Amino acid sequence: MAQVAERSSRLQSLLSKRAAELPSKPRLDATQAANQISFTYGFPDPASLPADQVAEATVRALKDRGHEALQYGDAKGYSGLIDELTKKLNRDQGLEAGRDNVLLTAGGSQALALVLDALVDWGDTVITEEPTWMGAVRAFKNVGAQPVAVPVDDEGMNADALERELKRLKAEGIQPKLIYIIVNFQNPSGVTTSLERRKRIVALAQEYGTMILEDDAYYDLRYGGNFLPPLYALDDSGSVLYLGTFSKIMGAGMRIGWLVGPPELIMKLAILKIDGGTNVFGAHVAAEWMPEHLDAHIEKLRVIYHRRRDLMIDALARHMPDGVTWTTPDGGFFIWVTLPDSIDTEHLAAQAKESGVAILPGAQCFVSDQGKNTMRLSYSYANDDQIEPGIKILADVVKGDLLETAGK
Amino acid sequence: MAQVAERSSRLQSLLSKRAAELPSKPRLDATQAANQISFTYGFPDPASLPADQVAEATVRALKDRGHEALQYGDAKGYSGLIDELTKKLNRDQGLEAGRDNVLLTAGGSQALALVLDALVDWGDTVITEEPTWMGAVRAFKNVGAQPVAVPVDDEGMNADALERELKRLKAEGIQPKLIYIIVNFQNPSGVTTSLERRKRIVALAQEYGTMILEDDAYYDLRYGGNFLPPLYALDDSGSVLYLGTFSKIMGAGMRIGWLVGPPELIMKLAILKIDGGTNVFGAHVAAEWMPEHLDAHIEKLRVIYHRRRDLMIDALARHMPDGVTWTTPDGGFFIWVTLPDSIDTEHLAAQAKESGVAILPGAQCFVSDQGKNTMRLSYSYANDDQIEPGIKILADVVKGDLLETAGK
Repeated sequence: MAQVAERSSRLQSLLSKRAAELPSKPRLDATQAANQISFTYGFPDPASLPADQVAEATVRALKDRGHEALQYGDAKGYSGLIDELTKKLNRDQGLEAGRDNVLLTAGGSQALALVLDALVDWGDTVITEEPTWMGAVRAFKNVGAQPVAVPVDDEGMNADALERELKRLKAEGIQPKLIYIIVNFQNPSGVTTSLERRKRIVALAQEYGTMILEDDAYYDLRYGGNFLPPLYALDDSGSVLYLGTFSKIMGAGMRIGWLVGPPELIMKLAILKIDGGTNVFGAHVAAEWMPEHLDAHIEKLRVIYHRRRDLMIDALARHMPDGVTWTTPDGGFFIWVTLPDSIDTEHLAAQAKESGVAILPGAQCFVSDQGKNTMRLSYSYANDDQIEPGIKILADVVKGDLLETAGK
Repeated sequence: MAQVAERSSRLQSLLSKRAAELPSKPRLDATQAANQISFTYGFPDPASLPADQVAEATVRALKDRGHEALQYGDAKGYSGLIDELTKKLNRDQGLEAGRDNVLLTAGGSQALALVLDALVDWGDTVITEEPTWMGAVRAFKNVGAQPVAVPVDDEGMNADALERELKRLKAEGIQPKLIYIIVNFQNPSGVTTSLERRKRIVALAQEYGTMILEDDAYYDLRYGGNFLPPLYALDDSGSVLYLGTFSKIMGAGMRIGWLVGPPELIMKLAILKIDGGTNVFGAHVAAEWMPEHLDAHIEKLRVIYHRRRDLMIDALARHMPDGVTWTTPDGGFFIWVTLPDSIDTEHLAAQAKESGVAILPGAQCFVSDQGKNTMRLSYSYANDDQIEPGIKILADVVKGDLLETAGK
């Protein structure tokens, strides 16, 4: 024991600022308790993961290009996959992008970490929606970024608030390095940014000379409302980096995402990454799978998640007591629930877990000290039959808490 | 054009220190010219990459565990692969390591980058062999590490020089964050660190309270001399992080490496990594491939690289003029060539390329301004028939250069 203590103390003296103040456990806990109904994570529906198709695609890819798929790859990623992606992004997302505009990454999380490494020195300012993806909250901390929060309302990031913050920072001589934003079915709020807001946000980034990092992990999973152009498509000044991923539309285990942006920045990111090529084997498999299966798979997923959203919205309406409100997303995985102020969702989450339901306390999605009465519910991972019973259990816990606090 | 210039200038003002001083192109250029004989990179032999076996393993893995292989994974990596690895590392490398000691990474390069992120703040000191792996030279620059070079001689890192530097740094109040070392068939020198040196280096790290990062990418590819214990196996104080990879013994395209070390540091690295699990799909495939095929594949590779080493050593002896010396590695991929002082291998590389042979100028493996008359020759990628002709061409260029400089 003495040795372990000595080892820990020496280690502590060697750690960087990045490592010195880490939380005590990893962000994701992929091992879900078997008897739990999990509304916690944005994990794709397990039953629809296309295992057989991926197996077939692997056999073909290794037969045709085995020596390439098992060798070191280009810094920017396998060009065959990049070509398939640019075709798809041009057609569906309306992005004008060629090979030089794209970098493959190990999922969206590496893409964000890499962009932060390229733009942020310890103490630099970044602008983010609030609430936002909890992984981004963690990633900002990792690199010592000072996040400035702009609230999300029912039209997305509040553009007036964004302009105020940009003005204030400029007056203080602070150059924000980027604006991190999720415009479609935002994680965690489920809100979609309106077209007018999108235009204003792009114009503000241009005016104030900062970059936008547009995280669009859920674009294709729309099952309500109309498709809106990404910020990248509304910008003609190279001010937007667009982030996508296969995690939600093929399989999160592929760990393949992409950044689309101005060629000179994409090249810098590729050089900074030094990793012998992003997941070369997986990229060859994805490139083989994509032309034949992606569109049909997305269609299938839209039906599944649409149904689950409706099941969860119905269950919330049926079971939740007065004073509880929630968003109705046009796509994606998440419903954002706001509870009466008296309820602390960290506490609620612990109680719900004992009753067999897991949720994400909303405070984890805030960079400020707020959101204690909010929670994120994901309907992507639990199966159809679990949603109504899970929400009923959760509502019972909420009702119990409200009774308790009313009695105080 | 004006717009591009404006974009570039704005981008420049947003870059971090890490990104501001990058080289102009990526380190690896995976696209080898078809008509070139390449002795440049440590790429595994293309013809021996086990494409059929990996295809079969993928089909099995996706049949048995498809929903797991295509889903987000544990922060530390797929436990099934970690269990296979610890068995192998215990048996072959003599490492005492359990599940808590291992983190999967996207190859050895991500492992190095991650360790640097966890230990190095901008301006911190690291100790490295010189020459060393050019990827490490680049990775040190990325994070603003100040490298202190310790020379490699024919017994490995010079332990007296290491002790001198550690003493000097201590006297100056500087805590070096780590010692980066490759003890087997070092990249680029081909030298293996003697057992006595290994023991002294471990003792010095313990005495001066620093970590060793032991990069052992080539351990299994020994075809001369006796296996020696890794530094990790000689240490009982948690002072060593051991780095391994599938890049040379399965396929570089898998992009799977691992770090072995004290559990508290492994956990910190896992938390810092935030990437949704390292290449979950690839890890499941590797775990399926490994038990049946790894040992036989390593045996096959030893025969191939042994033969190629001998072909290259013979060709060097036959063709190189007096005044040129080289190392004879007991394993791995690399021969280190020292030329007369009058020769600059950057210049030589350009000439050789015109004659159809590619080499790595040695200066890229130095953190100081040295090594201009050295080069690294890799015999892993060129096929048997190319080695003798390639060396003859190279020797002719050297002879020409020597004549030219003698005439001056």
